[in-house]
Amino acid sequence: MADNKKRRRKDPAGDELPFKNKLKPDSAIMETLKQFSASSSSSSVSQTLTLQDLSLPFRCREVADLSLSSVQSNIESLILRIAHSILSGHGFSFDVPSRSAANQLYVPELDRIVLKDKSSLRPFANISTVRKSAITARILQLIHQLCIKGIHVTKRDLFYTDVKLFQDQIQSDAVLDDVSCMLGCTRSSLNVVAAEKGVVVGRLIFSDNGDMIDCTKMGMGGKAIPPNIDRVGDMQSDALFILLVEKDAAYMRLAEDRFYNRFPCIIVTAKGQPDVSTRLFLRKMKTELKLPVLALVDSDPYGLKILSVYGCGSKNMSYDSANLTTPDIKWLGVRPSDLDKYKIPEQCRLPMTEQDIKTGKDLLEEDFVKKNPGWVEELTLMVKTKQKAEIQALSTFGFQYLSEVYLPLKLQQKDWL
Amino acid sequence: MADNKKRRRKDPAGDELPFKNKLKPDSAIMETLKQFSASSSSSSVSQTLTLQDLSLPFRCREVADLSLSSVQSNIESLILRIAHSILSGHGFSFDVPSRSAANQLYVPELDRIVLKDKSSLRPFANISTVRKSAITARILQLIHQLCIKGIHVTKRDLFYTDVKLFQDQIQSDAVLDDVSCMLGCTRSSLNVVAAEKGVVVGRLIFSDNGDMIDCTKMGMGGKAIPPNIDRVGDMQSDALFILLVEKDAAYMRLAEDRFYNRFPCIIVTAKGQPDVSTRLFLRKMKTELKLPVLALVDSDPYGLKILSVYGCGSKNMSYDSANLTTPDIKWLGVRPSDLDKYKIPEQCRLPMTEQDIKTGKDLLEEDFVKKNPGWVEELTLMVKTKQKAEIQALSTFGFQYLSEVYLPLKLQQKDWL
Repeated sequence: MADNKKRRRKDPAGDELPFKNKLKPDSAIMETLKQFSASSSSSSVSQTLTLQDLSLPFRCREVADLSLSSVQSNIESLILRIAHSILSGHGFSFDVPSRSAANQLYVPELDRIVLKDKSSLRPFANISTVRKSAITARILQLIHQLCIKGIHVTKRDLFYTDVKLFQDQIQSDAVLDDVSCMLGCTRSSLNVVAAEKGVVVGRLIFSDNGDMIDCTKMGMGGKAIPPNIDRVGDMQSDALFILLVEKDAAYMRLAEDRFYNRFPCIIVTAKGQPDVSTRLFLRKMKTELKLPVLALVDSDPYGLKILSVYGCGSKNMSYDSANLTTPDIKWLGVRPSDLDKYKIPEQCRLPMTEQDIKTGKDLLEEDFVKKNPGWVEELTLMVKTKQKAEIQALSTFGFQYLSEVYLPLKLQQKDWL
Repeated sequence: MADNKKRRRKDPAGDELPFKNKLKPDSAIMETLKQFSASSSSSSVSQTLTLQDLSLPFRCREVADLSLSSVQSNIESLILRIAHSILSGHGFSFDVPSRSAANQLYVPELDRIVLKDKSSLRPFANISTVRKSAITARILQLIHQLCIKGIHVTKRDLFYTDVKLFQDQIQSDAVLDDVSCMLGCTRSSLNVVAAEKGVVVGRLIFSDNGDMIDCTKMGMGGKAIPPNIDRVGDMQSDALFILLVEKDAAYMRLAEDRFYNRFPCIIVTAKGQPDVSTRLFLRKMKTELKLPVLALVDSDPYGLKILSVYGCGSKNMSYDSANLTTPDIKWLGVRPSDLDKYKIPEQCRLPMTEQDIKTGKDLLEEDFVKKNPGWVEELTLMVKTKQKAEIQALSTFGFQYLSEVYLPLKLQQKDWL
């Protein structure tokens, strides 16, 4: 390997790297991290509020992870209730929770979006709902089959089992979310999984479908995050934090430099927009290992939006926010104030488009931003300066500036919000 | 795990699955595969033609994998030659190979696209080329730094080291390909890597950056294919073939069912369009393990196009076709003739759009299709019936039809082209 060839020379610009002289020895930074990790693990225990702990003035609907056999028996009782209704002359109808925006709510105490309990009837004997109720019955039957066989399929597979009825995948996908809500279980409990996109590397050992995986021995490529979280278990780690990275390129830099060996951590990325598998995996790590999560995203409105999806959920799946979200993610960088602080040259900053600025302003109105004054300040600065920058902009100081100066200094200074 | 719970019941529709009764015992199918694997490994040895073996009426330009120190010394000699040219009064100019379509050629004997040897001068003292020659010099300098440090970066990192000069990434990317050609080495030899997308699972052991990876112990998620092929090595396998899968969903089905334990194979996917890392990884497996490659793609023009990129390269990187392409990939399925043969119901087939039909007709004109009469026949059938289908369409017979009937029967009947 290249490392062994002793081909490295002293980097001529090494000592001139901005802020490199501010770095303390790694042992000092490690002390900071240990305190942070310890305080985070104790606070997160006391902090795990649930809907039940709050006396909200209305009822909310939440789903839970259920075992396959519970899902199976829930379906069977539902169908029995319907058969009974038909036999007693009350007809065939599903009672379906509403997933519309009007039925959604951000709960600051929980720091996530939840679904209120409005629902509507979906009768078979009505021309406007007959198709949808037939689709609902068919999806229930297919899920029942999955329970019996104990296998996982994708939404696309589900669609193709009855194209004639479903017509297009949007219809079967929507009813699948309805069925999740009706049965009170998460979509992963239904054994319907999303495509996998995320990768993980660093100080984590876990089991995937019975195989033990050591993520310090996954080279530069890392381990693909499994699509089915219910077959993931036995998580062990000596990490002090989880580093959540927005983009592939930054992930690769950190994996190649084995950043997790210098500062014990677990590095995870969904390569852009967070997918359900990566969100579930992050939450499971946070819950089981009680580690703080630090996020490294682009300094633009989408970086913050991605952070918010991990943190408090997407509106589309608000019924499942308790299982999909990871509370208390810290915004490590790249933050709008970093651009001046780290003297990112003008030409590496990009002007925000009209759309960017609008998205930024919209975010300022969101509850999850408002509750964090530091975030409001940063976002206001971004919208005011109309400048954005990618994580990769740090490469202007050298390819390894991210792993050798920027991140260590951020950690040393506890510079997260 | 679900497997241990003995919750499986006899599938009521099991015996009615189309063609299930045609399946011989696995041991018989294994015999077929062993013969296939043996014949493939002997033929591929005798078949490795190179450009040098052919007496083509013109010179071709090809690049090779070079060590970091060779790349470094190539850059140093190039710059010395230029310094000499300046000192002797002949000015500062790069001699850059042309990568335009007019300079590309499909060579049937090699079954891939190659680059002819036309090149053009890029003088510094000319208003139309001054910027491009400055960019070229800067990229050479950056690559030289990578050689010294022995690290890998992405194209995006490279762009951000000098945004002022490069202006946008298209310009630095294009010059990067120029520099590959000029130095006569592959882009991966320059230590500039693409984002990783692919995953691999099954009967393969290899080393990634010094860590030994056993792909039978990677659960359902599989191992992410590393971005830097030069740190991949020590490949070992007892597989009889490589199964190249276009889509994530089919990959997941096969990984969960551990198809590779029933028929020893290595399963690999780039999740759609083939990326450079997956192409390099596939080629390395084929070359080192001497295994036949069977492809499972959608039955549409894009499925065949994806197969062609793996097989004979993309036009954009024709200078590197020798290193990026995997010869002799067999088209296993889903083939247009399978739609009737396996009685895929009408509603699971999709009508081809005008664009699909045009792409199909264009493909019929391509040399790499024409040289395989079986492919021409299938593609002609597709264009005639104007019908396409995804791999997922097989789910219409049950979620596990792909792994339990379709693929075993294909293997048993040696039904590939």
